[in-house]
Amino acid sequence: MFDFTLNGTHVLARAGTLVLPHGVVRTPAFMPVGTHGTVRGLHPAEVERAGAQIVLGNTYHLHLRPGEEVVRALGGLHRFSTWPGPMLTDSGGFQVFSLEGLRTVEEEGVEFQSHIDGGLRTITPESSMEIQWALGADIAMAFDHVVPAQSDYAHAEEGMERTLRWLERCRQRHTELTQTSPRTQTLWPIIQGGTHADLRRRSLEGTLERGPWSGIAVGGLSVGEPKPVMHRVLEELAPVLPAPVPRYLMGVGFPDDLLEGIARGVDLFDCVAATRNGRHGSAWTSQGKVNIRSAGLKSSDQPLDPACDCETCVRFSRGYLRHLFMAEEMLGLRLVSIHNIRFLIRLGEQARETILNGTFDRWSRDWLERYHRRGDL
Amino acid sequence: MFDFTLNGTHVLARAGTLVLPHGVVRTPAFMPVGTHGTVRGLHPAEVERAGAQIVLGNTYHLHLRPGEEVVRALGGLHRFSTWPGPMLTDSGGFQVFSLEGLRTVEEEGVEFQSHIDGGLRTITPESSMEIQWALGADIAMAFDHVVPAQSDYAHAEEGMERTLRWLERCRQRHTELTQTSPRTQTLWPIIQGGTHADLRRRSLEGTLERGPWSGIAVGGLSVGEPKPVMHRVLEELAPVLPAPVPRYLMGVGFPDDLLEGIARGVDLFDCVAATRNGRHGSAWTSQGKVNIRSAGLKSSDQPLDPACDCETCVRFSRGYLRHLFMAEEMLGLRLVSIHNIRFLIRLGEQARETILNGTFDRWSRDWLERYHRRGDL
Repeated sequence: MFDFTLNGTHVLARAGTLVLPHGVVRTPAFMPVGTHGTVRGLHPAEVERAGAQIVLGNTYHLHLRPGEEVVRALGGLHRFSTWPGPMLTDSGGFQVFSLEGLRTVEEEGVEFQSHIDGGLRTITPESSMEIQWALGADIAMAFDHVVPAQSDYAHAEEGMERTLRWLERCRQRHTELTQTSPRTQTLWPIIQGGTHADLRRRSLEGTLERGPWSGIAVGGLSVGEPKPVMHRVLEELAPVLPAPVPRYLMGVGFPDDLLEGIARGVDLFDCVAATRNGRHGSAWTSQGKVNIRSAGLKSSDQPLDPACDCETCVRFSRGYLRHLFMAEEMLGLRLVSIHNIRFLIRLGEQARETILNGTFDRWSRDWLERYHRRGDL
Repeated sequence: MFDFTLNGTHVLARAGTLVLPHGVVRTPAFMPVGTHGTVRGLHPAEVERAGAQIVLGNTYHLHLRPGEEVVRALGGLHRFSTWPGPMLTDSGGFQVFSLEGLRTVEEEGVEFQSHIDGGLRTITPESSMEIQWALGADIAMAFDHVVPAQSDYAHAEEGMERTLRWLERCRQRHTELTQTSPRTQTLWPIIQGGTHADLRRRSLEGTLERGPWSGIAVGGLSVGEPKPVMHRVLEELAPVLPAPVPRYLMGVGFPDDLLEGIARGVDLFDCVAATRNGRHGSAWTSQGKVNIRSAGLKSSDQPLDPACDCETCVRFSRGYLRHLFMAEEMLGLRLVSIHNIRFLIRLGEQARETILNGTFDRWSRDWLERYHRRGDL
């Protein structure tokens, strides 16, 4: 259980197989985000048919609503949401650190104001483990101290070192919890350190000292820093990350981010952009970005993306999708979200295929060139 | 084509089979309403799996947005919305007469202000036929003059007589349109006359004089009058309506209305209540009405309705549905709408079955007694 096998590599890019209690994940893979125990706007059967192998749940959101005890009483997040496959929960760290001005960070944990009822709550490394254990995903994430993208060295160092101390506490509490049950769950640590190469290196070293781990995440990226900076951090980490462990780049991303990340050895990604853009009528397509509200699409009988195999593209016209958005019909939000999710999942599938047949480098370079040349439609 | 066969009757209740260009409708049947070319919140495949045999489109809404020329350019309402089965469009009459203060009625037609851009538009009997022909449903409805429920005799008589004069114009224009094409569409008239027995009788006589018709609708009911009044009007019409013609009670209704209507010889129904209530989290169930937001359902592992076979009830718990509503997740609106649609469709299926085996009267009486006794949960 929690085994990861490398099936092939191409330069730094990797194709692997991760075995989890609820199923197998073939990487590289994009993981759709199910904030409230549902990938926004989608039915779990639609997520499955889009090819998703693993779905995320948000500890912060599910802790506030409906509360982990409700989820536990209803059989855990899998049964509650009826998603049968692998799941991962984040730790709540990213969300509580995003509540600028509404939270106090201390060594014990983070006190924050609920965005729902304004009530004061606290999450600590221990309580994050307890919440995630109650939710019952296959993979729990360590509770980390996330610092802003523009953080100076001292600030980034403080967050990185606290993340290591908290990792120790997470591991201890997680071990206690899992020992009490025949049920299994694994815990993945998160590398922090901002954009500073030696902090990232120290974060990794400190993390590995506290191992072994069945997976390692890279956090604190894609939070506003320029893309070349993110690429540099990934390039610096790639050779020192242990090869037989899956690598998860948190909160990334957009289609080009996926390919740039895969080219730098990343195995797993998650991001809300696919569904968020979908709800705004913005679609990634093989012909560039499409704003489905464009007047020019009014009478278009073409699919959203002629090269796409998603449920939306095989059935509906751009003209109909535009109409749904203009008439503010929910179905439109859903159909474009399905397309965007499938678009990222298929990118992962294509990357895996080209890694295994040794053409990833050329394929992804060509793909990115077309993507950047086309821009918005 | 457009043949209707009576397969069986039980007292006044009827089980029939209606043959339409896009398929067969077994009656009694509830028709979900697809206002903007989509049953709100549902995918056409979900509507199909809920057992819908025929779906409505709204002429008023589709005329304003996206406009019938766009729908025609995209292959007609069937291809546009990807609903493969039978469709019926209303005439726009009910909607424009609902625009109190925003419309002027003259013999020529109705001038009204668009609720979208405030622009002045006109619908006449002729233009209603042209729009509906462009939309291309199996069944077009005559453009009628709808009067409020509380209308006095003179007012109701005026509306009824104008409806007959307009029917003449509708028939003429519809005949011209259909003669130009190998495509087929049938036109159904609408009986008006408010709550006045002799006006209803005169409306029917005048309508039959202008026939023959492949179906007859009863309009101007369920617009605010007490339910016993609606039942009386239906009882008075039942013996004089021609038996071999399907009867469509427009804008009805709620579960009890369906059974009361079927008991009085109605074959077809439509209403937005199923999806509207669904979006508000209100569900009809075999145990009474359920408000899915109720705190008591928070940790309920039961389906919305234990006796239901819909996609929602076979998969999701009340606790999860409640959570989706509390977290304002679109999926919740969809799942309860699916349930409500299936609930009404299954009522039609059960009515048909009991009519054919001679138990409808007892079954529907028992059903209504339980329904009224249970009230809201």
